[in-house]
Amino acid sequence: MKNLTAEAATAQKYLNDVVGDIEKNLELHLPKDSIRPQRLHEAMRYSMFAGGKRLRPVLAYTAWEAFGGQGEDIWLLTSALEMLHTFSLIHDDLPCMDDDDFRRGIPTAHKKYGEATAILGGDALCILAFELLARTGNAEIVRMVAKSLGTSGMIGGQIVDIESEGQQVELETVDYIHYHKTAALIEASLVAGALLAGATAEQIKPIHDYGNAIGLAFQVVDDILDIEQTTEQLGKDAGSDVEKGKATYPAVLGVETSKQKVLELYNESLVALETSSAQTDVLKSIAAYIITRVN
Amino acid sequence: MKNLTAEAATAQKYLNDVVGDIEKNLELHLPKDSIRPQRLHEAMRYSMFAGGKRLRPVLAYTAWEAFGGQGEDIWLLTSALEMLHTFSLIHDDLPCMDDDDFRRGIPTAHKKYGEATAILGGDALCILAFELLARTGNAEIVRMVAKSLGTSGMIGGQIVDIESEGQQVELETVDYIHYHKTAALIEASLVAGALLAGATAEQIKPIHDYGNAIGLAFQVVDDILDIEQTTEQLGKDAGSDVEKGKATYPAVLGVETSKQKVLELYNESLVALETSSAQTDVLKSIAAYIITRVN
Repeated sequence: MKNLTAEAATAQKYLNDVVGDIEKNLELHLPKDSIRPQRLHEAMRYSMFAGGKRLRPVLAYTAWEAFGGQGEDIWLLTSALEMLHTFSLIHDDLPCMDDDDFRRGIPTAHKKYGEATAILGGDALCILAFELLARTGNAEIVRMVAKSLGTSGMIGGQIVDIESEGQQVELETVDYIHYHKTAALIEASLVAGALLAGATAEQIKPIHDYGNAIGLAFQVVDDILDIEQTTEQLGKDAGSDVEKGKATYPAVLGVETSKQKVLELYNESLVALETSSAQTDVLKSIAAYIITRVN
Repeated sequence: MKNLTAEAATAQKYLNDVVGDIEKNLELHLPKDSIRPQRLHEAMRYSMFAGGKRLRPVLAYTAWEAFGGQGEDIWLLTSALEMLHTFSLIHDDLPCMDDDDFRRGIPTAHKKYGEATAILGGDALCILAFELLARTGNAEIVRMVAKSLGTSGMIGGQIVDIESEGQQVELETVDYIHYHKTAALIEASLVAGALLAGATAEQIKPIHDYGNAIGLAFQVVDDILDIEQTTEQLGKDAGSDVEKGKATYPAVLGVETSKQKVLELYNESLVALETSSAQTDVLKSIAAYIITRVN
């Protein structure tokens, strides 16, 4: 674990460096709340600047950098990916979905601005994200990201997650939910960064597989933290998965086996990177960061 | 009016011809409800095949044809535009928004499938639409359509519409709502068709202005029909605008002045087409169809 901790610390330092630029560009690409419709813009900004880890933008940036990406379009991509993630959280938190009152330590969008504004604010972030992606001029990135979000991606995971609440589910269903709800967009973020840098399909394959493994690991860690951490540590309601009868790895396999699964996925992610021709040191560190995080 | 009626009949005949292909391609581009997540796919199909006029796809097709468009990508565009329109209707009908129980003569998505499925089904249609647009390989179309849908377009109109309910509003606000909520996507549909056919910015200008005029006319007619028609004729709750204190043209200017406005907009749309180098006869007929429609 010592090695892991050191790797994670390296990643944390890298993240701190990159996140400043990511934030600056988010600020730039979100409409001002002095412009009509003001309150909706305020709500979008409220959710965007509630303090997330910016993991998807960081992964896109890192993959882009690993393939020697150049130019300013990367910030369109990082901004779009964080907007898409936030859009999914806003809708996921709604009363008819997960019904969560807190997110990142503050009231969720619908608690603060009402349901109509939360739904339309989420919609607007999703739409703005596609506008930004299109501004890269790279239609393949738009297509691939959209695919990762739709019913064969994130939305598929969200609906099966909701439909499975309180049900006795098989490991296969938990795998489906985790892969689709979380891993698909994480994987797509990495692939999008590589595509923007001009990587070929062959070069992208290892990055894709890495993304698949750490994307799954990220969600299993999330489920473990929901059990082991407090609400203060998480900034959202701890223990809510158990309370809602959510289909999670710990619920199906227990906490210890789930932790074992995380380490397996970590190793898988490193094995995937071994075949890559790109500069993947930072991606390795980020994998360690993902599996050792505490919130 | 005799001339108008004849023009509208010509448009109706053209629509009948084109709508078959539009429907066939929608069927092709929507995921089957035998594929996981089945119930969500079923809900998406339910709302898509509830029998709309397919006006946005028809306009895109007509503009594309007017500029001599070739190839099969037009069906990606027509399918995407109708999905975007349906996405907006599904979310607009939600209890926290317009709270409508019927649409096109059958229960709205949330009445039939519940709110979570309705919200995610709407999200999924929006995302799938962007995937289809991106598959044309034309990033400018994606960008322009997204722009027309966001907070400076359709979503902006939707939120100001909701915020204005029961308020005393100025004509300026009604104009803002109508243009953004309805005209923006109609205009974008025409421009997208022209772009896909390879039209230049200069060639697109008259089509854009035509779209702006008939888009506004379409919404004013909608507001008049809400007052003058029955629920059976409309397939949705008649009189609901007045009941909800909606900001509409008839509410601000009265029905007669609103009808006058429709004729002015019709004339504007024809004047815009006069400067076009494209084959615009069908677009002229469609303008007549739009202002004489009864549901």
